[in-house]
Amino acid sequence: MSNFQILHTESSSAARLGLLTTAHGTVETPVFMPVGTAGAVKGTTPQQLKETGSEIILANTYHLLLRPGVETIEKLGGLHKFMAWGGPILTDSGGYQVFSLSSLTKIDDDGVEFASHIDGAKIYLNAEIATDIQNRLGVDIIMCFDECTKFPIEKPRLKKSIDRTILWANRCKEAHNNPNQLLFGIVQGGIDLDLRSYCASELVKTDFDGYAIGGLSVGEGHEKMIKTVTHTAGLLPEDKPHYLMGVGTPADIIAAVKAGVDMFDCVLPTRNGRNAYAFTENGPLRLRNNVHIQDARPIEADCDCYCCRNFSRASLRHFFNCGEMLGPILVSLHNITFYQRLMSRIREAIKRSNFADLAKRFDY
Amino acid sequence: MSNFQILHTESSSAARLGLLTTAHGTVETPVFMPVGTAGAVKGTTPQQLKETGSEIILANTYHLLLRPGVETIEKLGGLHKFMAWGGPILTDSGGYQVFSLSSLTKIDDDGVEFASHIDGAKIYLNAEIATDIQNRLGVDIIMCFDECTKFPIEKPRLKKSIDRTILWANRCKEAHNNPNQLLFGIVQGGIDLDLRSYCASELVKTDFDGYAIGGLSVGEGHEKMIKTVTHTAGLLPEDKPHYLMGVGTPADIIAAVKAGVDMFDCVLPTRNGRNAYAFTENGPLRLRNNVHIQDARPIEADCDCYCCRNFSRASLRHFFNCGEMLGPILVSLHNITFYQRLMSRIREAIKRSNFADLAKRFDY
Repeated sequence: MSNFQILHTESSSAARLGLLTTAHGTVETPVFMPVGTAGAVKGTTPQQLKETGSEIILANTYHLLLRPGVETIEKLGGLHKFMAWGGPILTDSGGYQVFSLSSLTKIDDDGVEFASHIDGAKIYLNAEIATDIQNRLGVDIIMCFDECTKFPIEKPRLKKSIDRTILWANRCKEAHNNPNQLLFGIVQGGIDLDLRSYCASELVKTDFDGYAIGGLSVGEGHEKMIKTVTHTAGLLPEDKPHYLMGVGTPADIIAAVKAGVDMFDCVLPTRNGRNAYAFTENGPLRLRNNVHIQDARPIEADCDCYCCRNFSRASLRHFFNCGEMLGPILVSLHNITFYQRLMSRIREAIKRSNFADLAKRFDY
Repeated sequence: MSNFQILHTESSSAARLGLLTTAHGTVETPVFMPVGTAGAVKGTTPQQLKETGSEIILANTYHLLLRPGVETIEKLGGLHKFMAWGGPILTDSGGYQVFSLSSLTKIDDDGVEFASHIDGAKIYLNAEIATDIQNRLGVDIIMCFDECTKFPIEKPRLKKSIDRTILWANRCKEAHNNPNQLLFGIVQGGIDLDLRSYCASELVKTDFDGYAIGGLSVGEGHEKMIKTVTHTAGLLPEDKPHYLMGVGTPADIIAAVKAGVDMFDCVLPTRNGRNAYAFTENGPLRLRNNVHIQDARPIEADCDCYCCRNFSRASLRHFFNCGEMLGPILVSLHNITFYQRLMSRIREAIKRSNFADLAKRFDY
C-alpha cells in the first residue's frame, strides 16, 4: 500500500488534499510542521503543541548530532521518547545547517567536514552517515543529505552542486535501512528552472517515498520562489508527497499549495512569537507597541487557542515588557494555532475548489 | 461567619488543618502559594499551574505598580482577569520590595519615597496608598504596608521601625474599603523575641483577618528563624490564619507548620527550577550535571507531574544545556508540584498527628 493517498484535487489549481501515512500516525495534507530544532518546539510543551492542532513536527539532525548526540538519543529509546512527542517526526539531513551555521573545513564529492558552531569540534557528514544518523533517531520521515549553496550563485557552480546532490541522494537511498521510515529526495537548483528540471528528472529515476523542494526562501523573494516552486512541483510524481522546505509566510504557503505542495515547515510562528509578533487574519500585531497597553481584546477574537481564550493584548504586552517567559510561550502557541487553522482552511478550500477568498485574507 | 475554620489540630505540635475562605474560593491550609511576581508565575501558564495542585497564588504589588500600573489592571477588570487566574490571589503590600529593590529617597512616619529600580521614576507609597492599590487590584487577601529593615539591625532602630509598622497597620485597617478582601497585619521584629511580642500584641488589638510573620528568611538561618516563628505564632490569635512570608525550603515549611503556621509563599520552586535545580524526596538534583547525560529516569519515579510523566533527566539536562525554554518550564512545573505534594502530605500528617517521618524525608 502506498504511504500517500490523494483524496481530492482542486479544479482551478494543482492543489491536492492528501493522506500521508507514517509509522506514528496519518496526517492530512497540506500540512504544516512546527520546528523542534533541538528536540523542543521552542516555548511549548508537546501537550500544548498537540492542542494547537499540530500532528507532525520537524527536528534538525545537525543540532541533535551536536547535542546530545545520536548515541544518547538511541540509548534513550529514540527521538520520539526523548522529546515526548508520540506523533510523526520528520528530520532534515543536517545539510542545510552544515552549510549555513558551521565553518566548513573540507568538502568533496564524498562529503563534508565542518567545525561545530558550538565548540569547534570537527565533524564529518556524508550520505551514508547522515542516513545512518536519521535511521537511528527512529523518526518517521528522513531526508537525503544534500549540498546547499548560497544565493545567488553562478550556474556552473550550481550545476556541480546539483550533480553532487543527485549522487548523494542515490547513496542515501542505498544506505537507508530502516523500513519504518520514509526517505525523501531533495530537488535543488536555486531559481534556475533548467537546473531544477534536471535535478528533478534525475531524482525521480531513483523512486523516493516523497520529494522536497530545497534551497528556497533564501533571499530570492516571493515571486521568484513561487515561480520556481510551480515549475518544480509540476515535475514531481503526482502520487508522491511534495514538501517545500523552510517555507514560509501565509502568502507563501497558499501560493505553494496552489502549485501542488503538500508539506511545509517553518520557524516563523515560534521565532516571531518569541519576538512579540502575532499573526492574525488582519495582518500582524506587534505586541510590544504602546497601542496595546490597555487593549482588553485578545490577539484574535474568534481564535480558540489558549492564549486568545485567556489573555488580553494588554497582558501580553506587559509580559513582553517585563521579560516574562509567558509572553513568548503564549504568542508562540497562538501563532502555531494560527498556522494550523490556516492549513485547515486551505484543506477546506481544496475540497470546495476555491482559493480566491483565502488568498485575499492572508496576503502577508 | 469566619473566613477561617480550624478542622483539626495536631496533638504533638501547634500544627493545624484549616479552611481559608476567600472571594475566589476556599483553600485547605497549610497552603503553599507560588509567586506570580509581575502577574505570571514564571515559566507556567495558569492552566499548567492549576495542574500542579496550586489553588492560591501571590502577586507583588510593587512590581505591578511599576508595570503595568494599577490603573491599567483596574481598567482591564482586575488582577484575576489580567493574569487569567480564577482562584484566590494574595498581594503583598509592596513594602518588602520598596526596601530591598528600589533606592529610597525619603522615609518618615508618613511613608516612603523611592526611585523605581526600572526607570528611576520617583514613587510615593504609604499605608493609605498601598491599601488603595491593593483594593483596586481586586485580589482576595491584601497585606498591611510595613517597614522592612535590613538584617542584622540595632535594637533601637528596629524598635522605631516596629512602631512605624504598627502605626501604618492601623492606618491600613482604617483605609481598607473593599469588603471582598481580607486584610492581614504583619508582625515584624527581626529575631528579637521581645520586639516580636510587642509588635504582635499591638497588632492583635486591631483585629486583622489574619496575621503574617514578616522579616524572616533574610540571612538569620533556619534555627533562629524557627525559634522566632515558634515564639511569634504562639502570640497570634488561634482562630486566625498565620502566614509566614517568603519561606522557604521543605525543612523550613515543615518546622513552621509545627509552630502553627498556615500559609507560605516562596520563589524557590520556580527560581530553582529555572536554574536546573529539581526538588526530590531524596534531596535536590542539579540537572546540568554530566551524570544525567544518559539517565532515562524521570526526576522522581512516583511523581505524577507533566514533567516526570514525560521527560527523562537526560532530556531535561539537554534542554538546559541548549538553552531551550522547555527546561525551565518543565522543572518549574515539577518543583511546584513537589511543593504542593509536600503540603498535601503535611495536611495528611496533621490528621494523623505524625510529623516525625515527614520531617526526616525532607530535611533540606
